[in-house]
Amino acid sequence: MATAADAMVARVSDRPGPHPRAMPLIRRYREDDWPALGPILHETFAAGDTYAFDPATSLAEIHRAWIELPAATFVACTPEGRVVGTYYIKANQPGLGSHVCNCGYVVAPDVQGRGIASALCEHSQVEAITLGFRAMQFNLVVSTNQRAIRLWQRLGFAIVGRLPNAFRHRSLGFVDALVMYKVLAS
Amino acid sequence: MATAADAMVARVSDRPGPHPRAMPLIRRYREDDWPALGPILHETFAAGDTYAFDPATSLAEIHRAWIELPAATFVACTPEGRVVGTYYIKANQPGLGSHVCNCGYVVAPDVQGRGIASALCEHSQVEAITLGFRAMQFNLVVSTNQRAIRLWQRLGFAIVGRLPNAFRHRSLGFVDALVMYKVLAS
Repeated sequence: MATAADAMVARVSDRPGPHPRAMPLIRRYREDDWPALGPILHETFAAGDTYAFDPATSLAEIHRAWIELPAATFVACTPEGRVVGTYYIKANQPGLGSHVCNCGYVVAPDVQGRGIASALCEHSQVEAITLGFRAMQFNLVVSTNQRAIRLWQRLGFAIVGRLPNAFRHRSLGFVDALVMYKVLAS
Repeated sequence: MATAADAMVARVSDRPGPHPRAMPLIRRYREDDWPALGPILHETFAAGDTYAFDPATSLAEIHRAWIELPAATFVACTPEGRVVGTYYIKANQPGLGSHVCNCGYVVAPDVQGRGIASALCEHSQVEAITLGFRAMQFNLVVSTNQRAIRLWQRLGFAIVGRLPNAFRHRSLGFVDALVMYKVLAS
């Protein structure tokens, strides 16, 4: 059955862009995705330029953080079924802050620039509303990650905070991080 | 042996103020503090106006969050040895964000306004530097908690972000939360 999120992904993917759009299928993570997904996450975190995870974080620790702890994890697949992206969704705070969710997104390096991150983020916003969240917060957007910042802004996120030198970039040293936020329901 | 943190607390406590200063002794938490400390935390969180913890959070969950998960927990005691306040300190993010710490502070309701929160915060800043942290971040300062905001500002914290309706205040409903930040070392 096509869901509202599926329809939204189709719309995003139909937009003309500088690269071929990947038309990803986004579905719930299954444990047999891990052999494909684990290395994408591991490679991303090892680069040390976008996520706080220690670049030496093990696959087991990544599995715990990306699969076990969140409320849900999704993957994006090519029409051929190759896993090329993922996001998790979870409450950003307990109890009286639990109506705000937090998501993380990763796209395989060789398919970036084709709208997959955008499709994942739009999917996650629909999923967030389905799960009852009222807003989405990114706690540590690395200020040098300009492509991501522009993308989140295009998708309706505002920069609501700036954390001086809060990220130790693997090649650039200490750089600022941004807090970004989007109200999903009023 | 008197530490730098002890000296700082003495200085803070010597300041003239509208209320008698408590001259708290601040020391590491010990497990036999729990019968006195647990109820102070439980009562604070049950009020639902300053911390995100669900007001119904159990003592066992509070113990885990305040004692077991942080890097360290401290208590403030009166000269007679009564536990009247506490703070925890922990890394705010893993890996490449782990040079920024996060602390939480609680003072027993009947001794508020006597400089104990101020003493705890100054102590925590010294402790943070000792532990190798370079900055301190508060992720969810409830915007209606004006006394705390003024105190953190007086102690050098800046408001670096504002999260719309990010806190579900038990009596006021959804209110904004602030992100506050202080660089401790350059």
